[in-house]
Parts: sequence; structure tokens; C-alpha cells
Amino acid sequence: MIGLDLPPGGARAVNRCDALGVAPFSDMAGGLYRGYLTPAYAAAQEEIAGWMEAAGMTAHRDAAANLVGRYEGTTPDAPALVIGSHLDSVRDGGRYDGPLGIMLGIESVAALHAQGRRMPFPIEIYAFGDEEGSRFPAAMLTSRAVAGTLEAAALDMADAEGVTLDQALCSVRVERSRDTSGAGVSTSLDTNGEGIAEYLTAAREPGTIRAYLEAHIEQGPVLEADGLAVGTVTGIAAQLRYAVTVKGMAGHAGTTAMRLRRDPLAGAAAMVLAVEQIARGDNSDVVATVGMIEAMPGAPNVIPGAVHFTIDVRSGKEERRDRVAKAILARLSEIAEARDLDIAVERIHDLPASPCDAELMDLMDEALIGAGQPVRRLVSGAGHDAMNMAALCPTAMLFIRCKGGVSHNPAEHVDPEDAEIALQVMLGFIERLGTRAGETNAA
Amino acid sequence: MIGLDLPPGGARAVNRCDALGVAPFSDMAGGLYRGYLTPAYAAAQEEIAGWMEAAGMTAHRDAAANLVGRYEGTTPDAPALVIGSHLDSVRDGGRYDGPLGIMLGIESVAALHAQGRRMPFPIEIYAFGDEEGSRFPAAMLTSRAVAGTLEAAALDMADAEGVTLDQALCSVRVERSRDTSGAGVSTSLDTNGEGIAEYLTAAREPGTIRAYLEAHIEQGPVLEADGLAVGTVTGIAAQLRYAVTVKGMAGHAGTTAMRLRRDPLAGAAAMVLAVEQIARGDNSDVVATVGMIEAMPGAPNVIPGAVHFTIDVRSGKEERRDRVAKAILARLSEIAEARDLDIAVERIHDLPASPCDAELMDLMDEALIGAGQPVRRLVSGAGHDAMNMAALCPTAMLFIRCKGGVSHNPAEHVDPEDAEIALQVMLGFIERLGTRAGETNAA
Repeated sequence: MIGLDLPPGGARAVNRCDALGVAPFSDMAGGLYRGYLTPAYAAAQEEIAGWMEAAGMTAHRDAAANLVGRYEGTTPDAPALVIGSHLDSVRDGGRYDGPLGIMLGIESVAALHAQGRRMPFPIEIYAFGDEEGSRFPAAMLTSRAVAGTLEAAALDMADAEGVTLDQALCSVRVERSRDTSGAGVSTSLDTNGEGIAEYLTAAREPGTIRAYLEAHIEQGPVLEADGLAVGTVTGIAAQLRYAVTVKGMAGHAGTTAMRLRRDPLAGAAAMVLAVEQIARGDNSDVVATVGMIEAMPGAPNVIPGAVHFTIDVRSGKEERRDRVAKAILARLSEIAEARDLDIAVERIHDLPASPCDAELMDLMDEALIGAGQPVRRLVSGAGHDAMNMAALCPTAMLFIRCKGGVSHNPAEHVDPEDAEIALQVMLGFIERLGTRAGETNAA
Repeated sequence: MIGLDLPPGGARAVNRCDALGVAPFSDMAGGLYRGYLTPAYAAAQEEIAGWMEAAGMTAHRDAAANLVGRYEGTTPDAPALVIGSHLDSVRDGGRYDGPLGIMLGIESVAALHAQGRRMPFPIEIYAFGDEEGSRFPAAMLTSRAVAGTLEAAALDMADAEGVTLDQALCSVRVERSRDTSGAGVSTSLDTNGEGIAEYLTAAREPGTIRAYLEAHIEQGPVLEADGLAVGTVTGIAAQLRYAVTVKGMAGHAGTTAMRLRRDPLAGAAAMVLAVEQIARGDNSDVVATVGMIEAMPGAPNVIPGAVHFTIDVRSGKEERRDRVAKAILARLSEIAEARDLDIAVERIHDLPASPCDAELMDLMDEALIGAGQPVRRLVSGAGHDAMNMAALCPTAMLFIRCKGGVSHNPAEHVDPEDAEIALQVMLGFIERLGTRAGETNAA
């Protein structure tokens, strides 16, 4: 087992993410790819289970093949604090998007364990399976299973190579039997084919979870731009996505006088600028992006006849998002009309906001102050497992600065000092949650 | 043989193009594709040779597999007037782009033949082979061969299926042996493999061609917009083409605040608008087009890291083209700088203008007046065989209105009445060229 000789702390969390960035914990040569239920995924679970046990936890794999560590509290049956994040990665991804939150959870428990301390509640560490959706045509299956919001019909699918979720599940299911010393490990594949049938039993009963805490790299440049190591997440942004088609009149690039053109690409260009201008002009957390554009037929010597592009609009507040999206669509219609172009807009996504719990955000802010950090709140534009756990319990998230805001890329980087700050904030959060629980217990 | 029972004239020229739009004169089911040296190409040559002979011409296939009809003049050795256009088509193309110019040439000769008239010079009709470049990775091979500007090295190529030009040439080479009654046709494939070796002998000696006349559909909407059936072409536009790459900073569409973005697609959008604005603002014949655009990586939830697009700039005057292109590139640099984007511009094409002969343009204008048409001159934004023939002799072109400016499309349409007007203009042009030749002969 690697990484047991390092001193506990934020730097070890980063180092362990690095250790998991290569074979056998990656299924990709020369880079990191750890898909849900792949050999690399199973190998990483084995490794992390050892780290959990060394931190005083028991470890098991649940019915959705999440790895779960548990550190008992002074009141064993009290609702647990769950600290979670995901173990899978995109193809050729970074090492911290996901695993860092798991490692910081383990480091939090390790710190308590080293002091011989237990909180008034159990702490569980969830290493979720498929947040990225990078193997099966669905994302966040496992946190939805835990939250009890997943339906059995959603499990009937296969990866790009035709391996069904059921088959993949059976291939990695391991009946863990591990003694508490962490020295002996014996595993045996579960080949009884009950994988999919048991999947939804990963659901936790409402009331058994006190709170959910997720630490994650920001995947954006806001903290870096503001010179901050960490920040309190206010929630996960509401998201709208549109597919836009603009049609004009195709023509020969050499033979159609400028005054006679109905060029949908020139129109789409005006629209792309309008998306930027309106979102920026809102001076809020609203972001709007055109990430994909295509001109048809797409030849240098042909004025396009049609252009397709996408618009993605997000905000922590649905009202803000909707207001900006409405303004964008109105402007697009004006542009199309002024240029005698046809426009068709299809809404292809509408995800509501998932706000973090107000009291837990206050606790997080206090923990930031306790760790000597300025208080900074920011919205998460990306989705996280926390948005599913919100159906089960109050949620909190802590963002950690990442270099250049880069993620889903081998260049993803987290400063070990930032990880240490995040760890101190998490411990302060746990401490304050414990105090509050103690008060509740005493009351 | 089809189309012999129709009355001579412009309508017959259109009808014959229609007749050639289907099998066996098309190699595509449900549409028209007549690639150079395909079975459809050979079948069309057979048919047209019959029409040439019925119009009093002899017909032969030259060493580049062009079909050539010849109508002798009163002075057989006098330099010839060549009337030409191309027989090939793009895939799923229109019926008139190319063949109409051949048919109108045949109708011109048919009209003289019906009157028992001969001009002081021979008239030759060239049905060129591969103007469109729709089979081999080169265009206008055959008119370059005739003009003597083609090099042997350019012939070493194969089509998408690996058939070399040499093989294709041998497969359709027919030794024509046809009696002048047009009744008996005997063909025999030339299988001696000398195809490519003889190719360049298709070149005509300088001095043997008096002038080249090409009638062609406009492939643009200018004549239609001005309510004109035909117009005198001033030349073929000079063309510049650029490949532009704009680089910014890729990022997560949800997590990168608007103020922190360096979005190359928003920058490219401003550039596309600048291209349009500068070309339009020149109020000249300059046209500038962005026909292809791609954002990388091209996902709805990712701010692109790079954008590629093309710019095509054309004008009848190189100076104008270059002035506008320079202004566009300067503006692009300003936009890139203001947005902190990197820009790289590669010039991938630089074709000089090919002006038509000034005296022949005057003759064409006189012929327009003679046919009761307003005089209208316009530049050709597209390339034509005439640009190659200009190396050999003075050239003239007549544009014919096409519906909606549409070409390279099954919807391509030419009004038979416009074709009749074009025919009358061509006959007027030939008449005036004959008068001038007579004057020259008398002097």
C-alpha cells in the first residue's frame, strides 16, 4: 500500500491523488482515465479502503459499488455526517477533480483518530462511483442511488463496448473481509449476478444522515483571481441549455454580392456576441456560453445556408438565469429579423438550482474564519454529487482553488498548501457541527 | 438520339441540358453527377457529338478527352473562335452549370448552319472535361491542357477510389469514326494505354485561336436582382483565402465567470462580423465570406480553447481585393489584442484576376444592345475555364441569369427565354467578330 508513510494532512491528500493518477489506478496509458467499475476503479477502491482503515474506519463497498468508510461517533446510532466526492474521472482528466474531496475526508477522520477523538455522530466517507458519466450514458448514478432518487429503469444501459451496467457491476463486486489492523486483505469477486437487482438498496434512509459535506476543486478561476485558497459554495447553479439553428440563403462565396446575402453565419456571429454581452452586462453570477458552432455545408467557398450552435446559461438563482436567458432569446430574434434569417431554438436542458443549506453555509463561513481565511461565497457552475444528496439531507460544499481554473485536463493542479487550508476548514466545520449536535443532544 | 426533334434555339439548349441530367448521362441515382471520364461523361459526349454533327460540325475527342466540334469557316486556316464550357458536374449538382454554355455554342452554329452561312473563321465548340474538380484532386485540367499551361507532373493522381487519371482516360478513350450524315456511329475503346502520355498534346498552338467565348449561368443573384437576363463579364475575380486560428483559454462553461474569460469564439464572432462589415462597407464588387467555422473542443458545456475559420476575399481588381483583405486582417488583430486572444492567419490561396479582353467586352456590349438588352457588366466571382484560356487568346464571357443565384444544387434553374436571349447575344457577338475579321482580312 502506497502513501501510508507520508505525514497526515492536506499535502498527503494531494499526494494520494497523484498516486492514484497512474496504473493500476488508471485505465489509460500516459494519462488518467478511471471509469466507473473499471479495473482501475476497483484497484483504487482497494487502495483507498486501506487508507480508510489506517485512519480508524471500517470500509465496505455498497450495492452501487461506492466505497464507504465509517468512523463511529460517541452516539453510534446518531445520524451521520457524510463526507463525499467521486472516484471516477473523465478520459485524460486531472487527478484532483473528485478524489481530492475523498482524500480530505479521510484526512479529517485521520486527524480525529490521531487525537483519539470521536464526534457525537458517526462520520462516513463516500467515494462515489460515476459522477462524470464517463463510461455509461448517464452521470451521478451512484449518488442518486444513495439519495434514493434513482429509478430501476435508469439502470438498463451499456457502455460504448456493449458491457451492461449489470455485467460491469458483477465484474468488480468484491465481498470485503478485512481485519481492523489493516494488515490482511482478502477479496473475492461476487459472481452471483445480483448486481443490478440490489443496486437501489444503496439508498440511505432519510434521517440517518445529518449532513453532507463535499470538498471539490473549483474547476474555475474565481478563487485564484481573488487570491483565495478556499470558499463556501452557495449551491449548484441552475442550468438552461439551448440548441439554436439559424437559416439563411446558401450561396457561392465568389458570386453573391454582399448586399444580396442572407448569411446565417454573420447572423450567428452577432448572436454569439449578444450572448456574451447580455450575460456579462448582468454583472451577476450568470454565465452564458456558446461552446459549439457549425456552419452548413461548411466549405470555405460557400456562404453557409444554416448554422447550428448551443447556448448554456447558468446561475445560482433560477430567476436570474431565466431573466438573462429570456433577454438573450429576445435579442436573437431581433437579430434574425433584422437580417431576414430564420431562427429555431430548442431547449435541451433545464436543471433547477440546488442551494446549499443556509445554516451549514454559516458553519462553513465560521470555519473559514477559524482557519484564518477571508469569508468568500461562490456558486458552483458545475454539477456535483451534492446536488443529489440534497434530496436526502442538508448539504455543504467547500471549493478549493485550482491553478488557472483548469479541470478535466492533465494540467489540473492543486497547491498542497491550499489542500491543508481546506482540511483545517473541514475540521473546523466538523468541530462546529459537533458542538451544535452536542447542544441538540443536550437540549 | 434525344432532342433532335426540338426546334433550334435557346429553349432547346435548356431542354438538352435537362435531357443530360438523368441516366445514362448521370452517374447518380435520383440526381445529377457527371464526373470527368465516368461512364455518364462518355455517354454525354456520344450524345453531344450527334448534336454537333446535326448542326453541321465534325466532332472528335481530343487528347485530354474534351469533346470538340468544328464548323469550318470561309478561310479554313484562319484562327478559330472557340466557344466552350464544361460538361462535368459536381455531385448532386444542377443541370446548367457548364453544359448550357456548350449547348448555346451548338445552337449558335446550328443557326448559322440552318442559314447556310459560314464565318470568315472556323468555330469550334469545346466541351471541357473537369472544370469542377469533382472527381480528381484538381480542377480545370482539360482547359489548362488546351491552353498549354498544364505540366505533366500535375497528371499523376488518382480519384477517391484509387483509379488513376491514366486508367480513367484509357477506359473512356473512343476512336470516333462517324460519317457526316450523323446516322451511323461506330466507337471503339482505345486500350493501348497511351492516355496520359498524349494528354498534353491537347494544347493548341498560340495563334490558332482568335478568341474564346464562354456563356455560363451567373451562379449568383446579381442579374436576377437587377432584372436582367444576361450581362457582360469583365473578368474572373482575384481570390485570396485565409485559414484563421484564434486561441483563448478553454474552460468549464459553468464555472468560469464572464469577467475572467478569454473566449476565442466570442472573439471569432466579432471577427466574422468585421469581415462582413468591411467587405460590405467597401461598396464595390469585393465579396468576403466566412464559410467554415469550428470551435474546439466543441462541447456545449466547454468554453472553447481555439476556433478555426476561413476567409475568402474576391474582387475583379486585385488592388481592391488586397486593400480590403488588409483592412480585414488589421481589424482581426485589433479584436484579438483587445480580447487577449492569440491569432494566427495562414494564406492558403492567392489567385490573380483574369480580366476579359477589353475589345471583346465592347463587342459583347454591342451584341447586348443589338439583342435589345441593357448593357450590364459584372465580375465573375467564380472561376471558369475562360481563366485558363486567357493564357492562349483573348477571352469573353456572357453570364445568364439563374433563379435565386442558386448553383451546384438540383434546384438550379434557367429560364428558356433567358437562354434564347443569350443565344441572340452570342450570334450578335459572332456576327460582329466576323465583321471585324473581314475588316482585318480586307486590310
